[in-house]
Amino acid sequence: MSDPNRFEPTPRTTAKRLAKRAAYDKKTVHGILDEGYLAHVGFVSDGQPFVLPMIYGRKGGTLYLHGSAGGRQLRALAGGAPVCVTVTLNDGLVLARSAFHHSMNYRCVLVLGSPTPVEDEKEKVEALRVISDHLLPGRWADSRAPNQVELKQTTVVALKLEECSAKIRTGPPMDEEEDYALPVWAGVVPARVAYDEPVADPRLASGTPLPPYLRKLKF
Amino acid sequence: MSDPNRFEPTPRTTAKRLAKRAAYDKKTVHGILDEGYLAHVGFVSDGQPFVLPMIYGRKGGTLYLHGSAGGRQLRALAGGAPVCVTVTLNDGLVLARSAFHHSMNYRCVLVLGSPTPVEDEKEKVEALRVISDHLLPGRWADSRAPNQVELKQTTVVALKLEECSAKIRTGPPMDEEEDYALPVWAGVVPARVAYDEPVADPRLASGTPLPPYLRKLKF
Repeated sequence: MSDPNRFEPTPRTTAKRLAKRAAYDKKTVHGILDEGYLAHVGFVSDGQPFVLPMIYGRKGGTLYLHGSAGGRQLRALAGGAPVCVTVTLNDGLVLARSAFHHSMNYRCVLVLGSPTPVEDEKEKVEALRVISDHLLPGRWADSRAPNQVELKQTTVVALKLEECSAKIRTGPPMDEEEDYALPVWAGVVPARVAYDEPVADPRLASGTPLPPYLRKLKF
Repeated sequence: MSDPNRFEPTPRTTAKRLAKRAAYDKKTVHGILDEGYLAHVGFVSDGQPFVLPMIYGRKGGTLYLHGSAGGRQLRALAGGAPVCVTVTLNDGLVLARSAFHHSMNYRCVLVLGSPTPVEDEKEKVEALRVISDHLLPGRWADSRAPNQVELKQTTVVALKLEECSAKIRTGPPMDEEEDYALPVWAGVVPARVAYDEPVADPRLASGTPLPPYLRKLKF
């Protein structure tokens, strides 16, 4: 019987190398998706893969993506063709004594599947809220909501989280035993996304304060 | 006659929407590739796209990727199938007054093509140096060079920069004229990759100093 807390590995999501870096439990997969904000979405057109950056949001077991109804990207995604959504968090550079053992600390999720267009207006608006609040919690309630024309210009697709895997590398470098004595600096340089001070729009209505959810960003 | 400073747009790299965000000049494309360090590489296997994070390096008009000779990823790349290499720099969140006009400031390069394996040992070592020095200039000379066994375990592929495009968004949000009066904070939250203080390997040979190229990282 399948474990409800775990994604069932498939031949396509089973790591053949470095199996110890793979994870399939939902808590890990959801955690990486929730911490990230930028996905790289792959789809195939005439045999050629295309990979494009997109933001996204997760609600339960569903990932939402959105974009312009007129673009070829969303047309491809809404057409039901297979996609791969990859979210990578770069946690640091791993510097080994040997060039060969250099690596990166990262957490990465792959989601395979075929998205379906979200046609129901209520679900569509909710999906847009989920995407907005994923990027910046609190922003949706603060912004002017989309009108009918804007909703028509926006395509939203839903991708079920069913065929998923995570890959994680953490910790110091792993060198060959005989290399540990080398006088080469080795260790990890932690990396993260940082935000700098918000820059107000030159046309900001005067007296508009910086909202609290922006003050909470990690600078 | 084609312009040597510019990539010739093809139907696959011609932006149909937001054409003003597209760029094809080599200086821009090379600049984004050189500033980035993480690519998302798409390839197709049995009709299913896969997108995986990889580091890379550029030398002139060639992009180099590398990985384990035993992995399916490099086997796929070395097999000559079409790939898409995407490098995205996230420059900031663009907060508009309307939910609809929220966006992201970014610089992104797409490279389409079919990689070829690098078999020549001299070129292979040079490609590994290029990848290493791209991530962290100066690191290669400081590390123990790969030996014959390690070189055999590493596959390197070269991808010619021929079918490329860049897409760039900069500047403040663009709202509907009637929304500018709304008392909603609008502007840009600049984003970047930040490094934190390097963490030495617990087994670092005693007395090994932090190398100068690590002190230059932007914290």
